[in-house]
Amino acid sequence: MHNLIPHAMAASAAQRVMQRCDHLASFSETEGELTRVYLSEQHFQANRQVQQWMEEAGMSVWQDEVGNICGRYEAATEGAPAILLGSHLDSVRNAGRYDGPLGVLTAIEVVSWLHQHHHRLANAIEIVGFADEEGTRFGITLLGSKGITGQWPDDWLEKTDHRSISVRDAMIAQSLNPLMVHQAARSPESIAAYLELHIEQGPCLEAADLPLGVVTAINGAHRLNCQFIGLAGHAGTVPMSQRQDALAAAAHWMVAIEKETAAAGGGLVATVGQISCSPGAVNVIPGSVALSLDIRGPEDGPLRDLLAQLLAKAEQIAAERGITFNAEEFYHIPATACDKRLRDACTQAVTAVQGSAPQLSSGAGHDAIAIAAKWPVGMIFVRCEKGISHHPAEAVTASDVAAGIQAFTQAVQLTAAPDTEIKSYALSQAV
Amino acid sequence: MHNLIPHAMAASAAQRVMQRCDHLASFSETEGELTRVYLSEQHFQANRQVQQWMEEAGMSVWQDEVGNICGRYEAATEGAPAILLGSHLDSVRNAGRYDGPLGVLTAIEVVSWLHQHHHRLANAIEIVGFADEEGTRFGITLLGSKGITGQWPDDWLEKTDHRSISVRDAMIAQSLNPLMVHQAARSPESIAAYLELHIEQGPCLEAADLPLGVVTAINGAHRLNCQFIGLAGHAGTVPMSQRQDALAAAAHWMVAIEKETAAAGGGLVATVGQISCSPGAVNVIPGSVALSLDIRGPEDGPLRDLLAQLLAKAEQIAAERGITFNAEEFYHIPATACDKRLRDACTQAVTAVQGSAPQLSSGAGHDAIAIAAKWPVGMIFVRCEKGISHHPAEAVTASDVAAGIQAFTQAVQLTAAPDTEIKSYALSQAV
Repeated sequence: MHNLIPHAMAASAAQRVMQRCDHLASFSETEGELTRVYLSEQHFQANRQVQQWMEEAGMSVWQDEVGNICGRYEAATEGAPAILLGSHLDSVRNAGRYDGPLGVLTAIEVVSWLHQHHHRLANAIEIVGFADEEGTRFGITLLGSKGITGQWPDDWLEKTDHRSISVRDAMIAQSLNPLMVHQAARSPESIAAYLELHIEQGPCLEAADLPLGVVTAINGAHRLNCQFIGLAGHAGTVPMSQRQDALAAAAHWMVAIEKETAAAGGGLVATVGQISCSPGAVNVIPGSVALSLDIRGPEDGPLRDLLAQLLAKAEQIAAERGITFNAEEFYHIPATACDKRLRDACTQAVTAVQGSAPQLSSGAGHDAIAIAAKWPVGMIFVRCEKGISHHPAEAVTASDVAAGIQAFTQAVQLTAAPDTEIKSYALSQAV
Repeated sequence: MHNLIPHAMAASAAQRVMQRCDHLASFSETEGELTRVYLSEQHFQANRQVQQWMEEAGMSVWQDEVGNICGRYEAATEGAPAILLGSHLDSVRNAGRYDGPLGVLTAIEVVSWLHQHHHRLANAIEIVGFADEEGTRFGITLLGSKGITGQWPDDWLEKTDHRSISVRDAMIAQSLNPLMVHQAARSPESIAAYLELHIEQGPCLEAADLPLGVVTAINGAHRLNCQFIGLAGHAGTVPMSQRQDALAAAAHWMVAIEKETAAAGGGLVATVGQISCSPGAVNVIPGSVALSLDIRGPEDGPLRDLLAQLLAKAEQIAAERGITFNAEEFYHIPATACDKRLRDACTQAVTAVQGSAPQLSSGAGHDAIAIAAKWPVGMIFVRCEKGISHHPAEAVTASDVAAGIQAFTQAVQLTAAPDTEIKSYALSQAV
């Protein structure tokens, strides 16, 4: 059974996945675009649809206490630890249709293939359609996967949406019992490994001209609000040499950010996405500038080093200009490394499909971040057009999806134990 | 009479000028701050007060058809062309008290001094308190001085304030006849020259540690709305090498603007005072950036050259990054050169007072811009604290004002003809 799914069959499965992505996209709170948030009517419509597809693929299905839709395809030996496959079924507002659902539907094809061939592995296969990864509704993310790991913070039930409806009340309205949230947590020994297929949401595979890639890590990130404070002045009367132009200082720094980050290499990226200057008049030298810094990388050490280097540069620029600089970090998430053994399995599978396996880090967050706190994780990326995501123009080709189905099925089989030794699979990623 | 006003007398006159600036500042439409706009009650309160001070100084006084308050101190020979002295009595919102009034009140001290000494020059001296230089109310500027030159555009009567009151209706409400506006225009031969004393509104004299400076020109200016258009992208997933970051391009350009403008010298200044980026999220690479460019200089040629150079640089930066740049000029005013002979008179007078006479261009606009279309103009600047203007913190010292009174009185006497030859004074600045 370790042979690849034949091309024609993978193509047929890919057509089905594409159609199902289209169908799931119709469960949207807004007409003509896709918005599906946690604990909405559409969330449960999608769950019921996915349940049906899971059942058709030969799985026993349940919805857990946080609203994840879960299916199990039993192992050769009943009750063996599961290889967990999954991705999320919620979306951002005005979303694309592949971010999340593609991973769930591809996983169903893996099981469907095994089921059609009456093949059971040493591990069970479980699939989760996570209820909330994006955090669109309540401003908190990874609710589905943190339900599975048992890591919901105490205060999440009290978080509210823009209409002041709390998670607690929204659960009750959808017949979920908020007192039972902890029951969604899975025991450590019940799951052996986690594999996720997801669209890349970036341009690297397109640039490499390959359908698939293997994820090395999910980038850590720091986000900061920064400010240069100089002195406002008349744009006509203050000579260039006597200015304390906060925007000129910020420009100087932004050039350095781009240059030094590119020079640092190592998959590090840094972005200034927001900027405003005060007083903000055409004929007034900016007295202060507020700007954001978002900096990410696959390894915490080099990321921290680059951030320190950039902040030191800002201080230096400010000092040279006789102005001040300050920065406040308001968000930080450490990097999540993918498990070495799962990377190897994914690499072998992707190489079998397309001859080589580009290794890349994920700039975006995924359910695997939460899962990695308890179990080893591995991920395969599928090329998406122009790297566009979180947008209706998000697109993948059926041909790339077919390759993804082939590789993901192979990776699952390579990950499954040849015998029961998988039960002692090292939990190398526990936090 | 070409000796300087004795220091003690100038100091006494400066005290009076400072008190009168304070008093005029009380004519404000807003309690606790200074806002005095064209055709307001306060405009005419200020006019009546200035009329009284002019009369006390020995002048005959009238209000002209656009609301300027005008006084004449007759020449040795009645009817001789006048040396026109003036500045404006209107203000921006929440203004300082010296921008404008200082020039009118200093001019009154010149006449007062001559009158006390029963001294009449070959030229008459006229003073105008211009009714509107700032353009605060109707969004059009230099209404007072363009009334004197006869250059009111046809559509100005229909311009409206924020309450939709037109200039026409506001004039009628204040007993001015809008049909008579053209009667404010002075015949070319009735005025020989124009001299204005004004606060610098910049930091150059403070940096030079001198009270007074001589204006070489009033800077020309270009203002443009500019845009870089790249491609928005995920701040985490797009590698540095594959970005089309519009803000990074704009930063690159802003650094070049500062560097190349400083290198150009020649009193040129360039300012980016407004910037915004889209979509403007902390985790999204900016797809487009809108920014303003304000560029000024004392000579039109070098100003035009620098602007062309900076726009070419922006095009080059955009091309190198595979993005686009566009710019649209929405405002342009040519430079106004001060008359050589009047500059010489001012330089001689200022040197007599403080030993040297810094030559500087004016970054801000003045009534002299309009007047220069018909008559030669000269200006003396008085140091103001930290270069602050258009702000309640605007400040001058009485000692600097005393120096200004000495120099301005001297400059007027040096400008006046020793005999009637002044009648053929060259109109070198006519446009």
